[in-house]
Amino acid sequence: MAHPAVAYTLGFDFGTNSARAVVVDSANGQEIGSAVVAYPSGHDGILLDPAQHHLARQRPADHLLALEKAGVLALEDAQSSTPAFRPALVRGIGVAATGSSPLPVDRHNQPLACDTRFAGNLNAQCWLWKDHTSIDEAQAITHTAQAQRPHYLARIGGTYSAEWFWAKIWHCLQVDADVFDAAFSWVELADFLPATLCGITDPRLIRRGICMAGHKALYAPDWGGLPDGEFLAALHPRLAALRDHLYAQAHDISVAAGHLCPDWAQRLGLPVGLPIAVGELDVHFGAIGCGVDEGTLVKVIGTSTCDCAVVASDQSVADIPGICGVVRGAILPGYDGIEAGQSAVGDIFKWWVEGVLGGDAARHERLTAEAAALRPGQSGLLALDWNNGNRTVLVDQRLTGLLLGQTLHTTPADIYRALIEATAFGARVIIERLRQYGVPISRVVCSGGIADKNALLMQIYADVTGCEMRLARSSQACALGAAIAATVLAGLHPDLRTAQMAMTGLRDTAYHPDPRNRDRYDLLYTLYLRLHDAFGGVTSTADLSLVMKTLLELKSDAQGA
Amino acid sequence: MAHPAVAYTLGFDFGTNSARAVVVDSANGQEIGSAVVAYPSGHDGILLDPAQHHLARQRPADHLLALEKAGVLALEDAQSSTPAFRPALVRGIGVAATGSSPLPVDRHNQPLACDTRFAGNLNAQCWLWKDHTSIDEAQAITHTAQAQRPHYLARIGGTYSAEWFWAKIWHCLQVDADVFDAAFSWVELADFLPATLCGITDPRLIRRGICMAGHKALYAPDWGGLPDGEFLAALHPRLAALRDHLYAQAHDISVAAGHLCPDWAQRLGLPVGLPIAVGELDVHFGAIGCGVDEGTLVKVIGTSTCDCAVVASDQSVADIPGICGVVRGAILPGYDGIEAGQSAVGDIFKWWVEGVLGGDAARHERLTAEAAALRPGQSGLLALDWNNGNRTVLVDQRLTGLLLGQTLHTTPADIYRALIEATAFGARVIIERLRQYGVPISRVVCSGGIADKNALLMQIYADVTGCEMRLARSSQACALGAAIAATVLAGLHPDLRTAQMAMTGLRDTAYHPDPRNRDRYDLLYTLYLRLHDAFGGVTSTADLSLVMKTLLELKSDAQGA
Repeated sequence: MAHPAVAYTLGFDFGTNSARAVVVDSANGQEIGSAVVAYPSGHDGILLDPAQHHLARQRPADHLLALEKAGVLALEDAQSSTPAFRPALVRGIGVAATGSSPLPVDRHNQPLACDTRFAGNLNAQCWLWKDHTSIDEAQAITHTAQAQRPHYLARIGGTYSAEWFWAKIWHCLQVDADVFDAAFSWVELADFLPATLCGITDPRLIRRGICMAGHKALYAPDWGGLPDGEFLAALHPRLAALRDHLYAQAHDISVAAGHLCPDWAQRLGLPVGLPIAVGELDVHFGAIGCGVDEGTLVKVIGTSTCDCAVVASDQSVADIPGICGVVRGAILPGYDGIEAGQSAVGDIFKWWVEGVLGGDAARHERLTAEAAALRPGQSGLLALDWNNGNRTVLVDQRLTGLLLGQTLHTTPADIYRALIEATAFGARVIIERLRQYGVPISRVVCSGGIADKNALLMQIYADVTGCEMRLARSSQACALGAAIAATVLAGLHPDLRTAQMAMTGLRDTAYHPDPRNRDRYDLLYTLYLRLHDAFGGVTSTADLSLVMKTLLELKSDAQGA
Repeated sequence: MAHPAVAYTLGFDFGTNSARAVVVDSANGQEIGSAVVAYPSGHDGILLDPAQHHLARQRPADHLLALEKAGVLALEDAQSSTPAFRPALVRGIGVAATGSSPLPVDRHNQPLACDTRFAGNLNAQCWLWKDHTSIDEAQAITHTAQAQRPHYLARIGGTYSAEWFWAKIWHCLQVDADVFDAAFSWVELADFLPATLCGITDPRLIRRGICMAGHKALYAPDWGGLPDGEFLAALHPRLAALRDHLYAQAHDISVAAGHLCPDWAQRLGLPVGLPIAVGELDVHFGAIGCGVDEGTLVKVIGTSTCDCAVVASDQSVADIPGICGVVRGAILPGYDGIEAGQSAVGDIFKWWVEGVLGGDAARHERLTAEAAALRPGQSGLLALDWNNGNRTVLVDQRLTGLLLGQTLHTTPADIYRALIEATAFGARVIIERLRQYGVPISRVVCSGGIADKNALLMQIYADVTGCEMRLARSSQACALGAAIAATVLAGLHPDLRTAQMAMTGLRDTAYHPDPRNRDRYDLLYTLYLRLHDAFGGVTSTADLSLVMKTLLELKSDAQGA
């Protein structure tokens, strides 16, 4: 045939509060059908513990429900929007999910939480990425690795996080041995869902993604895969024993996780045997859906941010301190994937407007308009964006927010703008750290609702970072990236980069750094760094004696400008 | 006669937004009549400039109106409440007023602002105590004195403030030479009002109070009164020329400012010739009305605080760095008066509740109730109380607020409590500085609406400072103190201390330090001091690396307690 056949793939994205499915045209990335299903349990899908702010879990049954329902509804939506579409034209499936979000499973790969014995037990659920209950275990892993396996830490930025795989599992062992005992294995949600679609009934047979393995589980081929048994035994002998029930090798998305099993083919109304992509974390697939490439940082801005960059693997990027990881193949095969992130962005604005001021979406808009009328420095304020800790480059959950420069005239909009600026300074710290280690960044492509809705934030980020800020064309970049991975497995494109070029794009609006604002923001950034280093423990001899006065000078200067 | 005749005195208190008069029974201090008159001009009596947040002026015509109206109404009120009362039984008058609040007058002691040429000119009005427009001049005075007359500064804590006499007058000279030229002299409001009652028509003949002279104008008998001409000329030759139109000697309240003139006797309906007390600053008279004595710190808590203590003059207290002044006779004759203060207390709570949260008095109450349910440290927050600068001990208006420890769960009540605690830590800094220089403080007697209404604040202050906190019996302590001064001049009591013992008292409620809270507040205070010294410029090698983590430990500890 002169023209390739019309063909589609199905991409899923399992987020923090809901799951989404999109049906994507493999020729151009057009999303012809989509559906969102909110997780029915807990608070917006999250199981909380009022006595323990750090706890955040999800019900695996919610994920399975959403997998079926979102898939079916997206396919129906595609049929409505595109009369020529038929489920038989779907040629593959990819799944993105949050992480590190491990869940305990039995020897048949069934979630313990689906067993009536454990249905009501929070520790048997999926441990959501933002669960911070395992701070102590994460510190112990860091200390042990510092002493015994410093190369493990170098790869993931120098500090093991409470958000990650081993810390969570170890914490479960400490607080709920029953659950730990009953678990045959633990599986990342982003591995569990593809495996479920493939009908895999032994956790040892799951083709796990190198994205989760390398960034969250200290996996690397050059030291033989997962951490060695001796190291794990130094943490706890039972963690060493668990190693045999995990995996010896992890995979990038150039291979399939398996093929659609009859049961799930029937549930979704799709052909048996479709290739299922190896899973990646949501933002990594999102980076693909945003067109990540050398020189382009992809930033998914939501409640928190996740930042992704790639460097061709033959460039051999060094380990980068404070960056969540440099993992070969984690995003695109043949490239080193680099992940960083900010622990809270949208969550900080939400806290301020809704949690403190008691406002709603309209208040967000009014405050944005008022904040937009201010010049850089005019509020006299400076904030640290650490209300949920610092993920990059300090990797320290036990940090908190700071606001400085208040007078008796400081307004809610002044503070709103200062909080946006604080997150922009946090973004700049990451970009500068990457550049310092040889990762070129000249452009930032954003995805996520906040980037889409808040032009003020985009302009401030451009002014603060000095980078052109763009928006990805797709508003469902994570699901799109998963769908793109499936096109290559289905033979619809020869490789990922070709598929990406055909199926992704940018919106027209570009935010360029305003040269009039650079000097003030450069000065504010040096003050931000001073607070960052003082409170973040980078220095124990901080000179903060002029911070307030410099802010007052900037304020006075901006008011007169 | 076996019983002394029933006799009364009239006390005035010219505050920031209104003036008050009370008619007081000289036997027991009972206030048998009172009246409040709000200043009619500006915003709550204050003339503001939207382009200049630092500016705060008052209209002298408002003061004169209030002097007459409040006096007349208070006397009428006394007649209503006490049938035996007659104006003829009034035996003297005292006047307290804010300061340093100087106003320019012509050679006949008429306010320039009452001249139609200057009626609309903000610089011709009374420069209210909290006007901070003269920050630059205050710094220049400090620098010049450091170089040429360090003993001037030692007496007033080491730094000349933008709130004080010479800085304000010099600033007027810099920005409005017309007003400066037209002014024959400048008079503190607390001197101007007694002089007006006495009918004094030459500013050089006013008996000025040593309280304002010593604390605000660098006056001290041991260096010959006001600063010498050479020093003033080093600031500006015209300030040296002004010296001759001011005063050679200032007085404590053991002498009268003069006697009631016929004009004002008629306006008030009182006998001509009544003794009029030399003026004192409101809080100094307030200290007398609260029963200030050795070992008792009097704290007037309002928008800001003013703290007063006394030490018998033969104890020879050293100059105390950072304390607004040690001035012989400023409060009580025969005692060294010591003044300190916090630049904002009530104003900070008002800013938070009304300015930021958009709340009202009911919201203040709800937040107080919520904040009262928290344990020390439980919010995880720590704040600096510098939204309006720091008066004591840093004496630096160019400092600003700070809030630290916010998470995504921090509530408005958490912050409200942290702000109360911050002002308590600020209070403790003052008390510790006084003790360090040999001024004994074991009890704090408070006056002012906030102390009266907010039991939570009083308990927190007790817990943080370790002092018993009491409330003065009178809620009009400043006016009462002025009335007490008049009783001695009228011969109704042999001396001030005797008058004070007869006419003042405490309310029954006492707030004792809760030993369960001391350790946590001691730890929080050390963290407060660390921020205080780092941002206040006391140190340029601050170690703040553990501040956030220590707060989180305290929080976790308090939640578990």
